[in-house]
Amino acid sequence: MTGLILHEYPASGNCYKIRLVAAHLGLPLERTSYDIMKGETRTAEFLRDVNPNGRIPVLQDGARLLAESNAACFYLADGSELVPDDRFERADMLHWMFWEQYNHEPNIATLRLWMRFVGLDALSEAQRMQIKNKREAGLAALGLMDDHLEKHRFLAAGRFTVADICLFAYTHLADEADFDLEAYPAIVAWMERIMTLPRHVGLAD
Amino acid sequence: MTGLILHEYPASGNCYKIRLVAAHLGLPLERTSYDIMKGETRTAEFLRDVNPNGRIPVLQDGARLLAESNAACFYLADGSELVPDDRFERADMLHWMFWEQYNHEPNIATLRLWMRFVGLDALSEAQRMQIKNKREAGLAALGLMDDHLEKHRFLAAGRFTVADICLFAYTHLADEADFDLEAYPAIVAWMERIMTLPRHVGLAD
Repeated sequence: MTGLILHEYPASGNCYKIRLVAAHLGLPLERTSYDIMKGETRTAEFLRDVNPNGRIPVLQDGARLLAESNAACFYLADGSELVPDDRFERADMLHWMFWEQYNHEPNIATLRLWMRFVGLDALSEAQRMQIKNKREAGLAALGLMDDHLEKHRFLAAGRFTVADICLFAYTHLADEADFDLEAYPAIVAWMERIMTLPRHVGLAD
Repeated sequence: MTGLILHEYPASGNCYKIRLVAAHLGLPLERTSYDIMKGETRTAEFLRDVNPNGRIPVLQDGARLLAESNAACFYLADGSELVPDDRFERADMLHWMFWEQYNHEPNIATLRLWMRFVGLDALSEAQRMQIKNKREAGLAALGLMDDHLEKHRFLAAGRFTVADICLFAYTHLADEADFDLEAYPAIVAWMERIMTLPRHVGLAD
């Protein structure tokens, strides 16, 4: 890997995941910003040259482009101590990363986006109608994590892996979507374990 | 891997993915059915013994349980010819699998579930309000796949991988959600390539 460039929106938790993986591995990342609030990832140029799906993050390695935050995290960490060697444990790590994109991110990250960036007044009626379900699904996701982390120090393989990074990103921002993390003591303890790791960096670092 | 059991709902595309990977690899799978329409994956027993997330599929290998369809597919195929050896190509395969769970399944599979299994009359008002957005997002997902498959025989790595299986599952069922696949000739040709592979099996096989 040479000349890694992260195409990103700096406040995005999905982009932060990739920076956090890179920090743990000591990999330098060049960063290129797009303002998603101004539609900069939906321009004809972005769709043609960066991601036809119109989303950040995209990780660029030389001339090759990789979309989807969790795939980019896996790419950087593949073969490192952040990915388990054991076949079942590696799949279990991926299970948490797929679960994050289906059960956690669309609820907690989307509510954060709507409440803190878009603004509730600017939502469509169809979006407003989803808030209650997203709130309930977000609470369920946090509850499931908390139950698991009561019995396990990290999500998969008994140690810190890419899955912890992918779930940490939006979990530690859940208060910005008015989720009360104090109700989840095992999550709070797990976040503390992550934030005190030697190479940890914050969203704004 | 010994004594593989698939906990499933047979009509689910997510469960079919795992059966299709197993068929290509010649792995025997025992199958245990749950009727999601009767809430059989939300019982206290299922939540305790199979999946605290209340969903199928779950792949069982001996005493170990693995939820999330795409993680289970990766587990079965890890180290086989269905997963690229090249690090970037492996991550690019995962990129399509994450994209499927975020951009394709919640739109195309959910509309199929609502239209063919739940019934539009039984939807909540909040669900009904989402139909238009899910329709548009489903069309966008199919358009993106079609554009990509115009230039590539398979989704990643220039050959048949787990990503093709994970995307085939609900794409080939999209007509059950009233998507007109004839509008996507590159998708139709790709599905034909997949369905004529020697070890292919159908959803009902």
